[in-house]
Amino acid sequence: MAIIEAVPNFSEGRRLEVVDAIAQAIQTPGVYLLHRTSDWDHNRSVLTVAGEPEAVLEGLLQAVKVAAQRIDLRQQRGVHPRLGATDVVPLIPMEGIDLAGCAALARRLGQRIGDELGLPVYLYEAAATRPERRNLADVRAGEYERLVEEIHLPQRQPDFGPALVGPAGAVIVGGRPFLIAFNLFLKSSDIQIAKQIARSIRQSSGGLPAVKALGLLVDGQAQVSMNLVDFQITPPHAVVEAVAREAASLGVEIDRGELIGLMPQAALLAAAASALRLPSLGAEQVVEMAIGQALDAGVPDPL
Amino acid sequence: MAIIEAVPNFSEGRRLEVVDAIAQAIQTPGVYLLHRTSDWDHNRSVLTVAGEPEAVLEGLLQAVKVAAQRIDLRQQRGVHPRLGATDVVPLIPMEGIDLAGCAALARRLGQRIGDELGLPVYLYEAAATRPERRNLADVRAGEYERLVEEIHLPQRQPDFGPALVGPAGAVIVGGRPFLIAFNLFLKSSDIQIAKQIARSIRQSSGGLPAVKALGLLVDGQAQVSMNLVDFQITPPHAVVEAVAREAASLGVEIDRGELIGLMPQAALLAAAASALRLPSLGAEQVVEMAIGQALDAGVPDPL
Repeated sequence: MAIIEAVPNFSEGRRLEVVDAIAQAIQTPGVYLLHRTSDWDHNRSVLTVAGEPEAVLEGLLQAVKVAAQRIDLRQQRGVHPRLGATDVVPLIPMEGIDLAGCAALARRLGQRIGDELGLPVYLYEAAATRPERRNLADVRAGEYERLVEEIHLPQRQPDFGPALVGPAGAVIVGGRPFLIAFNLFLKSSDIQIAKQIARSIRQSSGGLPAVKALGLLVDGQAQVSMNLVDFQITPPHAVVEAVAREAASLGVEIDRGELIGLMPQAALLAAAASALRLPSLGAEQVVEMAIGQALDAGVPDPL
Repeated sequence: MAIIEAVPNFSEGRRLEVVDAIAQAIQTPGVYLLHRTSDWDHNRSVLTVAGEPEAVLEGLLQAVKVAAQRIDLRQQRGVHPRLGATDVVPLIPMEGIDLAGCAALARRLGQRIGDELGLPVYLYEAAATRPERRNLADVRAGEYERLVEEIHLPQRQPDFGPALVGPAGAVIVGGRPFLIAFNLFLKSSDIQIAKQIARSIRQSSGGLPAVKALGLLVDGQAQVSMNLVDFQITPPHAVVEAVAREAASLGVEIDRGELIGLMPQAALLAAAASALRLPSLGAEQVVEMAIGQALDAGVPDPL
């Protein structure tokens, strides 16, 4: 049984009855809503769902349909950039499926959104059909307002659906690895220290691979805000160690961590293995996980 | 649905066909064998099983029966003390049941072993009927050989079954909290350092509560060998921190950890939370665990 996760982003974070309707629509049979968050300033909501691939595709199609009916990009304003009512739909491999499998599912979902809902669809990341569409920020450049003017241009031809922008805008669909959004607050109110640590640990300035980092000031406290784009390359506990070292060299300490959304079990095991000095710690050594594995293996065939 | 774990100890670690037969017998429907280990020197095997209480009691009864048929304490020799073929059967609360519930189950199992298999049974720890029987080592004092001579004495009257010792000896049954057997190897071959660290961290000499510790030399390497008898009081990552501190003060380092058997998910989460500086990290923030919770909650009623 394959399991995927999907983290669709919707351009509505204020009218919570609209988010409720989308969250209702996404929960078709076999789709489990694991997490939801809405932000007023961003005017955006993020749902986290998981389940078997076919079930999740059906739930996503229903959610995209409701979002297109209830969100009008001609009125929608927020600080977060967006191309459509359902702005972006990443599909993430969890179990029994790989990234290529999720990219194939993204193409199928994109085709259904184009054909059945009549919305323009762009494929990104692992599902991208052109190199210049791999990066989400590039696909979204100029946002909804510029897409209205440019969709007739060859370089903006959608991958599926009509080359025509309605009030619901366009949908960006793709496959990507699990992303861990993880922040570390410092015992400091100096944003320069956070910026300096971020520079020293992020891949783009020669730091840790698969780590994106920014230095921020959040409620008066310095924060290193990170995206770990491949936790199997750089897991979160390795980031904590690196930030602790850099912070110590600048004379400050980590105050606490903050996990945005969810993390995979493998990253949890890796962090515990590090704390317990048990490099080979596996799920089969954790009672509840071992029971789960035994249950999976021991379920008799239906009569 | 309640889940218990049981970790029965059998006085056979050499004739693996006997251990196989016991492991076979214990796996009645609904009993999941999670782990098994046999030791030649100890001449002892430990099985770890889990499942719903009624299923586990039935599996244990069958395993005790096979062990009594196949193990003869008049011949059995090994470095580990023992009172019977099935030496000790601890029942451990995992989910939807507490220690008192496991103690009640231990009394029911003890009664069935006494009545149906005709073996003398002693209740210990949470199930003990007398204060002097709480401690396993006290119940087992003098081992099988002394019990043969003393079972007629009032202070050795079994809790269930006949006051008569056959070749299978007696069975000790009880309820106890989850015990984590966890060792730390040091980068040293000096047993005195291991002993000194063990003294400084164990409860009995004023160290960490709910921690038992010994300093050993294992294959020429110094090891702090520990039983964490209540991981909710002192979790394994706290022990690593304490041993690391003590070791540093003696000029040595931890080499690696070693987990004997299994640990509970709550201890894993606590260790990861410490490494990631996420004090409130919960199972609902781990994708696979959140899916498990959603599946449990979302399973429709049978039609």
